[in-house]
Amino acid sequence: MIRIYLDYASNTPLLPEVKQAMVAWLDQFGNPSSLHAFGREANQALEQARRQVASLINASPEEIYFTSCGTESNNWAIKGLLAANKRKGNHLIVSSIEHPSILLVAKRLEREGYDVTYLPVTREGVVEPGALKAALKPTTVLASVMYANGEIGTIEPIAELARVAHEAGALFHTDAVASVGYVPVDVKELGVDALSLAANQFYGPAGAAALSLRDDVRVLPHLEGGGQETGARSGTENVLAIVGMGVAAELAKPQMAARMAHVSRLRDRLKEGILERVEGIRLNGSWTLRLPHNLHVCIEGVSSESLVLGLDQEGLAVGIGSACNSKAMRPSHVLKALGMSDEEAKGALLFTVGVQTTEQEIEVYLDVLPKVVSRLRHVIAMTVAR
Amino acid sequence: MIRIYLDYASNTPLLPEVKQAMVAWLDQFGNPSSLHAFGREANQALEQARRQVASLINASPEEIYFTSCGTESNNWAIKGLLAANKRKGNHLIVSSIEHPSILLVAKRLEREGYDVTYLPVTREGVVEPGALKAALKPTTVLASVMYANGEIGTIEPIAELARVAHEAGALFHTDAVASVGYVPVDVKELGVDALSLAANQFYGPAGAAALSLRDDVRVLPHLEGGGQETGARSGTENVLAIVGMGVAAELAKPQMAARMAHVSRLRDRLKEGILERVEGIRLNGSWTLRLPHNLHVCIEGVSSESLVLGLDQEGLAVGIGSACNSKAMRPSHVLKALGMSDEEAKGALLFTVGVQTTEQEIEVYLDVLPKVVSRLRHVIAMTVAR
Repeated sequence: MIRIYLDYASNTPLLPEVKQAMVAWLDQFGNPSSLHAFGREANQALEQARRQVASLINASPEEIYFTSCGTESNNWAIKGLLAANKRKGNHLIVSSIEHPSILLVAKRLEREGYDVTYLPVTREGVVEPGALKAALKPTTVLASVMYANGEIGTIEPIAELARVAHEAGALFHTDAVASVGYVPVDVKELGVDALSLAANQFYGPAGAAALSLRDDVRVLPHLEGGGQETGARSGTENVLAIVGMGVAAELAKPQMAARMAHVSRLRDRLKEGILERVEGIRLNGSWTLRLPHNLHVCIEGVSSESLVLGLDQEGLAVGIGSACNSKAMRPSHVLKALGMSDEEAKGALLFTVGVQTTEQEIEVYLDVLPKVVSRLRHVIAMTVAR
Repeated sequence: MIRIYLDYASNTPLLPEVKQAMVAWLDQFGNPSSLHAFGREANQALEQARRQVASLINASPEEIYFTSCGTESNNWAIKGLLAANKRKGNHLIVSSIEHPSILLVAKRLEREGYDVTYLPVTREGVVEPGALKAALKPTTVLASVMYANGEIGTIEPIAELARVAHEAGALFHTDAVASVGYVPVDVKELGVDALSLAANQFYGPAGAAALSLRDDVRVLPHLEGGGQETGARSGTENVLAIVGMGVAAELAKPQMAARMAHVSRLRDRLKEGILERVEGIRLNGSWTLRLPHNLHVCIEGVSSESLVLGLDQEGLAVGIGSACNSKAMRPSHVLKALGMSDEEAKGALLFTVGVQTTEQEIEVYLDVLPKVVSRLRHVIAMTVAR
């Protein structure tokens, strides 16, 4: 059976160079903390990857802290920055369309007595700098707004949001997990204090991620133990995955323009084709500031789950609602924040393409999707009629 | 140059079967949370690994929570069990020879207002059940004692310690990171509520570890987000490393007896050879209850660092002090807890052998070590004389 993957938001296949570097590393086993040659070689690989990741986002290598996943980076950023900067206050600001790894931590902190503000978004999912400005208080320690929403694709005005936060003396974190590798992300241009990224979103492996922290920012250590990552994130390093992330990061920068052109062309073809061939389609998110590989639609009269499973039967993989939480099956908090009703949000589908996606694959989708939608609508009509 | 690795406590090379499974997985990229076939295949691999790991320690698959490293498992166990069982009290008991990933968390909790007791150990590093019994209070939530100390090799009387803790209504956790794969570890026989393990200690990859939690034990989620690991440890799973851990776990059980015979024979040969050929050697830890692959000695009149580096110049890798924190260069807290002075603890060396170690490698060590010790002692004597 043909198998086509348009769910790059969930995980990306490894680039050949990444795979090659990882296969080569499988025979190495030094612990970077060891003094002997085996350890030093592992440490050199670790530090090379740190430079590669830093370079991709224009940070200093010393500002890169390796973690195990984007969720860990996000949890740590929120908890660690608030805990280390209590003297300023106990107020946290997040947008209402953050990933659950930000929102659920915010909700827990709220239950523990922190003061939390959830910023509204426009119908297109934009966090307006004016809304942030209005929410800032003298006690605001941190504002966190994602670089782009991985579900609806909208890119936020991060540089302006960071500036507004700084004017009030607050720190600014951005979850760029869905963005790094797809669009240029530069921590200095953005002026952010902290930024999360994960290799499995830019053709590197799962298991390697990072939190970039400006060097003068205080943070509570996340894991304590052997003192790895200058004591901020202890634990034996996953050098294998980190080596893969380093290579993936190094490839991303020179390839960025070509990748953006490739994925946006295919994404646009997919969009036009779907609009032509399927009735009752609504496009979600902004069409001016948008991730180039992302297409998010709601299809009237069918459910996301039946669409994903119906396409899966044809060998076609797409995402449903929030990429990291598809098992939960609840209407996306993101679509609710855009002002959609549960009914409107029901048939949400997330298409994300990647550098490995081909034109032919898009044409197969455009051939199969209308048939699956018709079949589902037919089944529903029959069920209702009965 | 010849290169020989006797630092298995720091990291273990992959077994060929583990490497093979991981190489095969490098071409897979499904996210286990995705509904489509790519995701379901990843999820099946994840659940197979969960069964394999559970079987190795006689837990139920539902009791296994994957984490990124032993440090994460340990940090989570201590913080998560205390936070979820506050009603019982705020008292924590740990031994004074725990890994830093337990001790540093205990010290942080103490600063935050928790009541923490550090249990003493005998000169051989044994935590006596009587000492635990005397320390237990009505407010004791948790006692945590490592299965075996990775540095001095002493195996603790865990079953008895767990029973004593339970008699007082306290939970019991054991850090078995240095032990699982080297000796049989059975959570039911031990009667522990929680147990930490890590694949990079039993010929699996770094980046995969687990916390085994008895199913009726309450724990606070460690990372929050997409709801992976039944909501207790969110974050996209590192399926590649977890697949490797599963295979490593599956191989460990049937090979256990042969492995123990192999490594203890080589370890004993190393011990005898060193005692014969080097003067001023002290063996540390217990010689009745001991990890079979571990030899920990103090060598009079030389420092650990100069020994490790001197051996490294000859291509020979050994461990120094605490395996996970060799960069810190401070006298080991473990040796201090045994009652050693800084001077006595100075020349500590940790030899750990593995299934890949050969007799010939041991003979090379026994040939080179006396020469390196003599050279170092000579240099020191010259420096003092001058």
